[in-house]
Amino acid sequence: MTNSTTTPPQSFGVLLFPGFALLDACGPLELLNGLSSVVPMTVSLIAVESLEPVATMVPIETLSDEFRKRVETQQPLAVQRLCPTHTLDTCPPLDVLLIPGGFGVPNAASDERVLKFVTESKAQAIITVCNGTGILAATGLLDGKKATTNKWWFKEVTSGRPQVNWVQKARWVHEGRYWTSSGISAGMDVVAAYIRETFGEQIGELIPDILEYTPELNPDNDPFVDSWKKYLPQTE
Amino acid sequence: MTNSTTTPPQSFGVLLFPGFALLDACGPLELLNGLSSVVPMTVSLIAVESLEPVATMVPIETLSDEFRKRVETQQPLAVQRLCPTHTLDTCPPLDVLLIPGGFGVPNAASDERVLKFVTESKAQAIITVCNGTGILAATGLLDGKKATTNKWWFKEVTSGRPQVNWVQKARWVHEGRYWTSSGISAGMDVVAAYIRETFGEQIGELIPDILEYTPELNPDNDPFVDSWKKYLPQTE
Repeated sequence: MTNSTTTPPQSFGVLLFPGFALLDACGPLELLNGLSSVVPMTVSLIAVESLEPVATMVPIETLSDEFRKRVETQQPLAVQRLCPTHTLDTCPPLDVLLIPGGFGVPNAASDERVLKFVTESKAQAIITVCNGTGILAATGLLDGKKATTNKWWFKEVTSGRPQVNWVQKARWVHEGRYWTSSGISAGMDVVAAYIRETFGEQIGELIPDILEYTPELNPDNDPFVDSWKKYLPQTE
Repeated sequence: MTNSTTTPPQSFGVLLFPGFALLDACGPLELLNGLSSVVPMTVSLIAVESLEPVATMVPIETLSDEFRKRVETQQPLAVQRLCPTHTLDTCPPLDVLLIPGGFGVPNAASDERVLKFVTESKAQAIITVCNGTGILAATGLLDGKKATTNKWWFKEVTSGRPQVNWVQKARWVHEGRYWTSSGISAGMDVVAAYIRETFGEQIGELIPDILEYTPELNPDNDPFVDSWKKYLPQTE
């Protein structure tokens, strides 16, 4: 362990809500699968209220007027369903909580059950992917802290919680127990970074190698501020 | 379309078998989800025999002696379950078939139902990820063709079908309708390459951008031949 003052995390959990983005959850999960082959740990998949499979598509009619049209025209038509292992009520205590993003975030970030669960989490690390940062931000836990989110939802997520010190150009941002990351595939890089920091260099290199994955090592390297400029607030 | 002589693919399918690797399927699937927001298409998730959720873990007792010990000591303890939409029997005709890898490949590659399904596929493209190439190779369809697979299973997969012209150092290999790729995360790069080739530059750049993913553009760039040297046959 690089940090000998804390107990190594053993209980990992990934939040699942209708309209989560598949790779936001499954990229990090594959790294955790690799990790589980070398350290003792569990990975819970946590649905909001039932053990029914959770779909990557959010039903349009459940969204508020503010988001309905944008999601309706952009949400993928393909849909997948992943099976949860727990609900918010049955979830074991977590050392690490991972919150994915997706088209369902507007609902999840205004769901009091989800916000209570995240707010009361005693996890030593809370990791967010893409606009999943909007869920964590909605709890107020990021107020006064640096954080990032994806480009396509940047204005919505950041204007929803201006008390956060939003960083526009970042692959991921780490402050205290919070690790927030950029869009979709950035979830793999922030989790790889978290594993390096927490489990040391040897395991930190082995796990992406198992996936034959070359992780981004520089949290500031974010080429997508250019490709998605039109979705970002003008800073000058 | 860059190739105006073929109809654009609309029906995509991903094979699911017990012990498939999560990211082998879900990395490509997220690219296909993105594609589905801009072109008309369907994505089927195809289980072998039932619509029960398919687990990423293969039951050790189902493996032959040859593979049992190696899988038992290396298979992740964490497990996820993805819901199929079809079975081999109910699957619609596919334009593109994607075959993931995983610890369950030794079983899938000797399952006559799977081999018959792949052999009879009329898909204009068959894409494999990781040791999923071993399933395609077992049909004989790759005999005399160039192909690649992942490092950790390289010896097993290649010795199982020496009639294939195996390429050790490759992120992916494309010959005819066959696109075979290297380990786990390479599935995203081969599918990104397939999308570029098939749908042209504009869509080919847009889809990885949606995922904020920087795909590898060079099929020969494969740094993992060095990290996994001990699993590879000595070539000199």
